[in-house]
This record gives sequence, structure tokens and C-alpha cells, in this order.
Amino acid sequence: MTTAISTEAPTGCRPGAFGNATHLICRACGATGPLGPFYACVECFGPLEVGYEFPAVTRAEIEAGPKSIWRYAPLLPVPADIATFRSTDPGFTRLVDARNLADDLGLRQLWVKDDSGNPTHSFKDRVVAVALSAARELGLKVLACPSTGNLANAVAAAAARAGIRSVVLVPENLERQKILASAVYDTTLIAIEGTYDDVNKLASEIAGEEEGWAFVNVNVRPYYAEGSKTLAYEIAEQLGWRIPDQIVIPVASGSQLTKIDKGLQELIKLGLVEEKPYKIFGAQATGCSPIAQAYRAGHDVVRPVKPDTIAKSLAIGNPADGPYVLDTVRRTGGVITDVDDETVVANIQRLARTEGIFAETAGGVTVGVTAKLIADSALDPDAETVVINSGDGLKTLDAVADKVGPKTTIPPRYEAFEDFWKDVRP
Amino acid sequence: MTTAISTEAPTGCRPGAFGNATHLICRACGATGPLGPFYACVECFGPLEVGYEFPAVTRAEIEAGPKSIWRYAPLLPVPADIATFRSTDPGFTRLVDARNLADDLGLRQLWVKDDSGNPTHSFKDRVVAVALSAARELGLKVLACPSTGNLANAVAAAAARAGIRSVVLVPENLERQKILASAVYDTTLIAIEGTYDDVNKLASEIAGEEEGWAFVNVNVRPYYAEGSKTLAYEIAEQLGWRIPDQIVIPVASGSQLTKIDKGLQELIKLGLVEEKPYKIFGAQATGCSPIAQAYRAGHDVVRPVKPDTIAKSLAIGNPADGPYVLDTVRRTGGVITDVDDETVVANIQRLARTEGIFAETAGGVTVGVTAKLIADSALDPDAETVVINSGDGLKTLDAVADKVGPKTTIPPRYEAFEDFWKDVRP
Ligand SMILES: Cc1ncc(COP(=O)(O)O)c(C=O)c1O
Ligand SMILES: Cc1ncc(COP(=O)(O)O)c(C=O)c1O
Ligand SMILES: [Zn+2]
Ligand SMILES: [Zn+2]
Repeated sequence: MTTAISTEAPTGCRPGAFGNATHLICRACGATGPLGPFYACVECFGPLEVGYEFPAVTRAEIEAGPKSIWRYAPLLPVPADIATFRSTDPGFTRLVDARNLADDLGLRQLWVKDDSGNPTHSFKDRVVAVALSAARELGLKVLACPSTGNLANAVAAAAARAGIRSVVLVPENLERQKILASAVYDTTLIAIEGTYDDVNKLASEIAGEEEGWAFVNVNVRPYYAEGSKTLAYEIAEQLGWRIPDQIVIPVASGSQLTKIDKGLQELIKLGLVEEKPYKIFGAQATGCSPIAQAYRAGHDVVRPVKPDTIAKSLAIGNPADGPYVLDTVRRTGGVITDVDDETVVANIQRLARTEGIFAETAGGVTVGVTAKLIADSALDPDAETVVINSGDGLKTLDAVADKVGPKTTIPPRYEAFEDFWKDVRP
Repeated sequence: MTTAISTEAPTGCRPGAFGNATHLICRACGATGPLGPFYACVECFGPLEVGYEFPAVTRAEIEAGPKSIWRYAPLLPVPADIATFRSTDPGFTRLVDARNLADDLGLRQLWVKDDSGNPTHSFKDRVVAVALSAARELGLKVLACPSTGNLANAVAAAAARAGIRSVVLVPENLERQKILASAVYDTTLIAIEGTYDDVNKLASEIAGEEEGWAFVNVNVRPYYAEGSKTLAYEIAEQLGWRIPDQIVIPVASGSQLTKIDKGLQELIKLGLVEEKPYKIFGAQATGCSPIAQAYRAGHDVVRPVKPDTIAKSLAIGNPADGPYVLDTVRRTGGVITDVDDETVVANIQRLARTEGIFAETAGGVTVGVTAKLIADSALDPDAETVVINSGDGLKTLDAVADKVGPKTTIPPRYEAFEDFWKDVRP
């Protein structure tokens, strides 16, 4: 990898294929090189990320754009005509003013960024939409991924819509919902006898062997990861072009957390929001909390763990972005911590009961960690807080199946109802 | 019920409680009367609907509004400050340019209005949001419904968010997904040993006995039903303030279909779109197709049936709006017809495979009926067509569980992958 920045499109790509992106940069050693189907630094094997030369971008230009992540196209590695391609057009999900949950938690001002409204009901539609664009521009023909479930759903749906082939690899013990909600798109779904980390390793091998495959979170990962920046852009825009004080983010590989931070930094640099301090908090399930453990131990590196948690979407024992999560959390003055599975379920119920939002286990992790951070005085209850709900409760129904259900079953007669109601009437 | 139009707020309500709505009008005999917690005509027991005196409303005013159904607040029976109350703020869902499905079906231009992006993933969030406003303004304290599932999810979520009590009644044989995705909001969920029509009858009895209950689709039904007009408004706005030639709509009680027509008529009357002919088509599952049967027989009334179909959300054997559906379909030159359960499943898969949209059984019904209407030459393949996807596949997973799944299960080794892939490689 050279240190010269190429402003040309990669060989074989049309001009403007990656919009205002100009180069790839190594997150470990800072070496830069041209755009292309690269993901590891030739100098140090470190992970690459996308660099830009942004033009002036105004709030008004963004606000006039489509009601999807493509309103932020100038800030993403996608061509200017991206909205004309067949994609699932995710994003611009609700930012819910969560006054009930705020009261319940003892917070002054709390927002829930509810990404369950995305086309396949998780934030993964964002990253996949950007990865799909990169795959198309790079001439790659198969969209693929190793996945803990949501990514598989998003890849299969996006590939169907784009009319290209997809192959998704998942651990065989995945939730039935996530299996079926991938397979229905007529993808080549392959169940793997192993953990996500085994699946991920196999995917890297396949990526190295097969020509023309875009493993969204492996060989086009630099582009894929940029999609999560749109969560930061939307939060800021929906707050009236403001950055909140505190953000609590679920963490598996750690990509989402680090890119939300990158997105906020870009907004500041572009003058789209006023500069101000903010704290980034990470949320893991205790049964898979390698980064939280490293944080507590004061380590800079993350020791892999073997996951054992109901929060399967977060069950990555060997997180690719682990050190960068530690860095982001520490640099901003945040914390990364974890809650156990029982707490996860209780907090799925808490979010549903208070705000009418039914989150998957990852959402239970994030709300549960928020409560814990407040109890630990790590989160300032008077500071404006945003919690990310990145997934959907319909995909992890078993988590609550023992906890909730009908209060009674009765014949269709008024007397039967009265009999029940007289005891529960307020 | 008097024939005089009252422009005052109902007794006990604040001025402007129902926005530009001024009266209720009987859909059977045309008698009018004041706004209030009324749903049946005192003259003829016919169903009431909301009447308005609309001020001038401009496209620009609407476009400047919130990205939810509340942008159309001036056209709904809700107060001008509606967006300040805690609601799930549904609507403004994607209108997908469905070029792949169009090609597959042989249509020139097809759009899918994808209401699975709503907060509880069906169009019912729209009607419940309006009903909740009416309940609040009328001082009713319990939000309730009989439901085929989606309505229960929407009522329970909206009540949780609004901080009021809810009671939802469902047939006990409902899909597990819809049971759990109601109960999680901590509603009083009551399972009834019977069909939806039994549940509905019981709800009417309870509505007659209990004080202060808002059964959204019974005693506040006139307000509730108005929520479906927003589907028409959004389709027109998203097409650039144009009405499409043909719309295919799933039908259970028939409320959604008749209100989409009402919404289009209002847009024309208000000059927000150009007047033009359009055809409304209805879609039922053969196992519960009382209105399609009446249509074919040339009847004006609908003979109730006992439902037997996997499309449980549409399994209303005695549809309240049956005659009005027949009238709307015939007046606009459309058709209402039905497809069997096998076709429903095949069309869930068709929509998923072509557009990356995973619909519930109701969506399979609607796409399946669209295909049938084309085969029957009832739908013009050259005319611009909109199909409503009103629900979400994650809620009816069993419909596809036998049809889709992993293509293989292998150990996490490259040779195992190669072994599988060499046979399926394109
Ligand atoms: C619902 C959900 N939330 C959060 C995450 C975490 O994403 P990341 O790997 O970017 O940390 C995932 C990853 O699969 C997920 O599915
Ligand atoms: C997903 C879905 N689509 C369509 C309908 C039909 O609604 P309507 O009763 O207004 O005809 C329902 C009703 O429950 C539904 O749940
Ligand atoms: Zn390097
Ligand atoms: Zn009447």
C-alpha cells in the first residue's frame, strides 16, 4: 500500500464510482492507498477505512434529498446517481422522544433511534446498501456475508431487489425467524456447524478463493462500515442539526459504534453541526462481552471469548473493531459495559411497556446497559441521551415467550369476560 | 340522529378536538349529526363516517409537515396540535418502484406501498393513531379492540406509548408472533375461544356495557377508519401529487379499501391532485372471500362465511364494510377476487424474491390477486398500478416455513463449502 492518495477511480470503475471518497487509509498505521476491493493494509495488515475530500455540503441540500440514507450520498462512498439504482433505500427511521422511558430510567431527555423501521428491520440495511453500491461499482457479482442473522436478512433482501446473486453464511443454531427471513428471499443460505466466529473465518477463506464475490463485511468492509455513519447523520439532523451529549450503542464487531463516532466528527468538520463534547457508550451482553472485559481490565487489545448469550446478533467473540471501540469509548469519556440475559429480557419488556417499541435482544442489551450506566453514575442523567435500537423483537420472540402472553382464555360470552374483568378492573 | 350539522366540539371536548371534522354522516341514509362517541345512525343503524369542512390546504403546507401521517392532520379528525401527543407517529412508509415484480407480472409500471415499515409493521398503526386521538379527546380511558392480530399489536403499542390502559381480544388460534407481539407491551391480552367474528361480537357487547372504553374499530370506528385515508394521501404525494390508474388492496372488514377511495376523492376535491379515473381492486383469500363471492354473484349484500385460510389477518367472515367495498369496486370499474392459500404462499415468495420485501399472508393475497387479475385481463398491464403491502412476513412465518430454508448445513471448513458450491455454482 502506497502513501500517495489517488483521486482516480479504481481500475475498471467509472469516474465518480465512489463519490467524494478519494482513498483508503489504514486505521492502524495511517498508510493511504487507492480505492478498490481492498480491506487490509499492505504495510501492516491493519483494517482500511474510506477517506474523502468533501466539498461544501449544506443542511438545505441534505434536507432536499430523498427520505433515505441517500440524502447523505455526498458523505458516503457512493456515486452521485446512487438513488437511481435498485436498493432497499433504508434509513431515515424514527427518532422517538422517549419521555416514558426517560421517566422510568430517571433521565432528563432521552431519544430512541428506532432502526426497526428499516426494510428488513435492523440497522444492517444501511451498511448493506452502501456495500451493494461498492460491489456493483467494483464489478463484483455475488453479494455475500457471514452473519449473526440481521446482516443475512439485509444482504438477501438487498440482493433480491438488486437482481444479483447472494450467498449468506450463518451459524446453524440461529433464531428460526432470522433463518426464514433470509431464506424467503431465495438466497443461497448456508448453515454452518459452529459459532459466528467460525462462520466468519470460513467467509474469509472463501473471499480469498472465489473471484468476484463481495463479502460485505469482509472484503468490501471499508465501504460497508461507512453505512453506519448515517445513524449519526440522522440523529443530528433529527435533533435539528445538533449532537446529543451521550449515545449508547450495541456492540458486536464494533463497527457501528466506531462509525457513529466518525459520522459525528465529519458533521463537525463540515460545519453542519456545532462542535461540542459527546460521550460514546458501548453495550454488550455479559455472555459475549470481550470488549467490555478489556475496557474494565484497562487493556488495549481484546481477548476473544466463546459466546453464550441469548443476544445472538451480538454474539461475536472475536470482534474486528474491538481496539477501535476501546479507543472511541475512552477518547470520548464513555464506558463499555454489559448486562446478563435476564436483564436483557427485562429491558426488552421495559422498552415495549414504556414506549411501544418491541426490540430484539440487542435492544434489550442497549436499554439494560443504559440503566446500569445510570445506576453506576457513568451516564449523566441530566445530559441529553440517545439510545440506539438496532433491531426488531419479532426476530427474537423466544426471548420473551416465557414472560408474556394472554392474561386469560375465555369463551366468547360477556359473562366470561365480566368474570375475568371484575378481578383486574383498575 | 338529527340532520343538522353541528360545528361545535362534542360536549366535554375542547374546541378543535377533531380538527376540520364537523359532523358524522350515515353512510346508509345520509343523515348527519354531531361529532361524538357515536358509530351507528339513530335513524337506520347504518355506519357513520366523519364529515369535514376543509379549509384550503396546499401541497407545500403538507410537505413542510412531519414525516408521519400527521403531515395530513388538516384532513383527519384530529386536533391541530396532534403531533405534540405521545403516539407511535406511523406513516410515510416507502413507495417502492417495483420494477422486478412488474417484469415478473408483465406490468408496465408497478409500485408497492410497503406498510411493513410502520412501528408495529402493519397499516394498523395508522388507524390506531387516529382512534387514539379520538379516544383522548372524548375522554375515554381504555383503548381496546377485537383483532385478527395486527390491530392488537398496534393498539397495545400505541396505548403503551400514550401511557393508557389497553385491552385486546384475539381469537385463541392466532399466530404465535401476533400473540407475543401484543403481550410484550403489557396489554391485557384476552384470547377468545372462537373466530374473529365471535371476538368482534363479544367486543360490541363489552363496548355497550363498559363506560369509558374506546374499542377502536367498534365505538370509535368512524375516527379509526379515517386513518386509512393516509395511504391514499401518501401514494399520491409520493407519486408527485398524482393518482395512479389502478390500486390493489387487501380486504378483511373492507375499511381500508373504502377509505383509500375516500382519501383519493378528497385530494381531488381539494385540488391537491388532478381529477382522473382510477380503478380500485379488492383482494381476499379464497378461504374467507365473502365480498368476492358477492361481487361474482352480482349481489349488493354480503353473506357471512366461516373463515378457513392461512391469511388470518384477513379472516373476517362477516365484514362490516362489505356493501361499501362492492360499491367502491363497481363504481370505479375494479374487481374484487380471491386466491387460494397455496397461491398466497407462492406470492409471498414472489414478492420477496423480486423486490426484497417480506410480506405477511395478506401481502401474498394482494400480490396473488394482482397476478390473477392480470391473467383474467381485469387489470390493464399498461396502466400504472399500486399494490398495498399492509403487513409483515415476520408475523406469519409458518406460511413459508415448509418452503424455504438453508440450502445445506456444513462444517466450518473451506473444502465442505467447495463441495457444496461446485454443484450450484452458476
Ligand atoms: C441488531 C444488531 N445490533 C447491533 C449489532 C452490532 O453491530 P456491529 O457488528 O457493527 O457492532 C448487530 C450486528 O449484527 C445487530 O444485528
Ligand atoms: C395486514 C392486514 N392487511 C389488511 C387488512 C384489512 O383491513 P380492513 O379490515 O380494513 O379491510 C388487515 C386487517 O386486519 C390486516 O391486518
Ligand atoms: Zn497499516
Ligand atoms: Zn342512517
